[in-house]
Amino acid sequence: MIHTIQPRSGTAFVVNKGQRLKVIDPEGEQVADLYAFNANDKTEFMSSGRSLDYNESLHFKTGAKLYSNLSQVMFEIVEDTVEDHDFLLTPCSVDTFKHFYPDETPVPGCYGNLVAAFADYDIPAHHVGTTFNTFMNVDVDETGKIAVLPPKSKAGDYTVFEAKMDMIVGLTACSAGESNNFRYKPIQYEIIDAPGEVTR
Amino acid sequence: MIHTIQPRSGTAFVVNKGQRLKVIDPEGEQVADLYAFNANDKTEFMSSGRSLDYNESLHFKTGAKLYSNLSQVMFEIVEDTVEDHDFLLTPCSVDTFKHFYPDETPVPGCYGNLVAAFADYDIPAHHVGTTFNTFMNVDVDETGKIAVLPPKSKAGDYTVFEAKMDMIVGLTACSAGESNNFRYKPIQYEIIDAPGEVTR
Repeated sequence: MIHTIQPRSGTAFVVNKGQRLKVIDPEGEQVADLYAFNANDKTEFMSSGRSLDYNESLHFKTGAKLYSNLSQVMFEIVEDTVEDHDFLLTPCSVDTFKHFYPDETPVPGCYGNLVAAFADYDIPAHHVGTTFNTFMNVDVDETGKIAVLPPKSKAGDYTVFEAKMDMIVGLTACSAGESNNFRYKPIQYEIIDAPGEVTR
Repeated sequence: MIHTIQPRSGTAFVVNKGQRLKVIDPEGEQVADLYAFNANDKTEFMSSGRSLDYNESLHFKTGAKLYSNLSQVMFEIVEDTVEDHDFLLTPCSVDTFKHFYPDETPVPGCYGNLVAAFADYDIPAHHVGTTFNTFMNVDVDETGKIAVLPPKSKAGDYTVFEAKMDMIVGLTACSAGESNNFRYKPIQYEIIDAPGEVTR
């Protein structure tokens, strides 16, 4: 079953160990911020810093692992038609909008949408850290300068993450103009059972 | 008054708004991991992701600001004889040592040392995130590959951080071989009062 996340919104759901989360960009050029907690210990959560450390690269592709703050593997990327994502930048938020777009009316952004979605699982706002920004195209040049460019994802592109623990997962259709080539589109996702398992 | 942090150890202390924290590398080629909490709200802490976002560069130099998860400025770098630091990688830990140096006996590392130091202020371990790794020389090449190189800091080099809020600050003399050119040295620090203020 394919679920749709409406433009500039977010949701949270359970993904169990062995299941696969397929994140789909149905129209192209749309970022989806991903974050996760260990379902059995909500003080264990996704860690950009640990993942960058062990991945030894800014680029996460098929075979790359996303680690928790306790250095446990949360997800492995097992299929990826884009192979261009970001794990440096925090989800957009009211404060991000104030900083970068001071003339616009701020929206909750991916941070606000994730905080609201995780609140249903009694997860406090300050545990929501740097997200894995699926399909986000962030360029770092030779001087270290960071630039946000239009995503390389085309309509129907997707990334499949295999869960290595039971998790509460948050996912958004990103709200920031620059990250999504200034058009806000939906994101789709599908939870696929492990081979041989009964569909839940 | 100059304080000394012994090799492969860490400490925590209070730095108030307007005070300056001078972090000194007395022998050269030694990394010091820095982390901080808002003294009045310990759910507000240093954020690599927010800082990278607003800094728009991997490089933090004089004038750069270090932000909290709530997008508030915690520190501004006001003087810096090195201008080569890292804000990508998590502090070394028992798990890091197991991952990168499986044949060595693991030590608590900067993460363990910070967790212990912050425990004195009733700060839980899982609130210790990606540190600002003062003097750490991390190269990112054009393919995104991350490499840890010997620090560029020479004996007596230093960086001065001006506090923009009252904070509980943790600081280490880093325990990882590769980060410190395989010799473990002390780190020194000094808390300097704002001009016109009485020395505390």
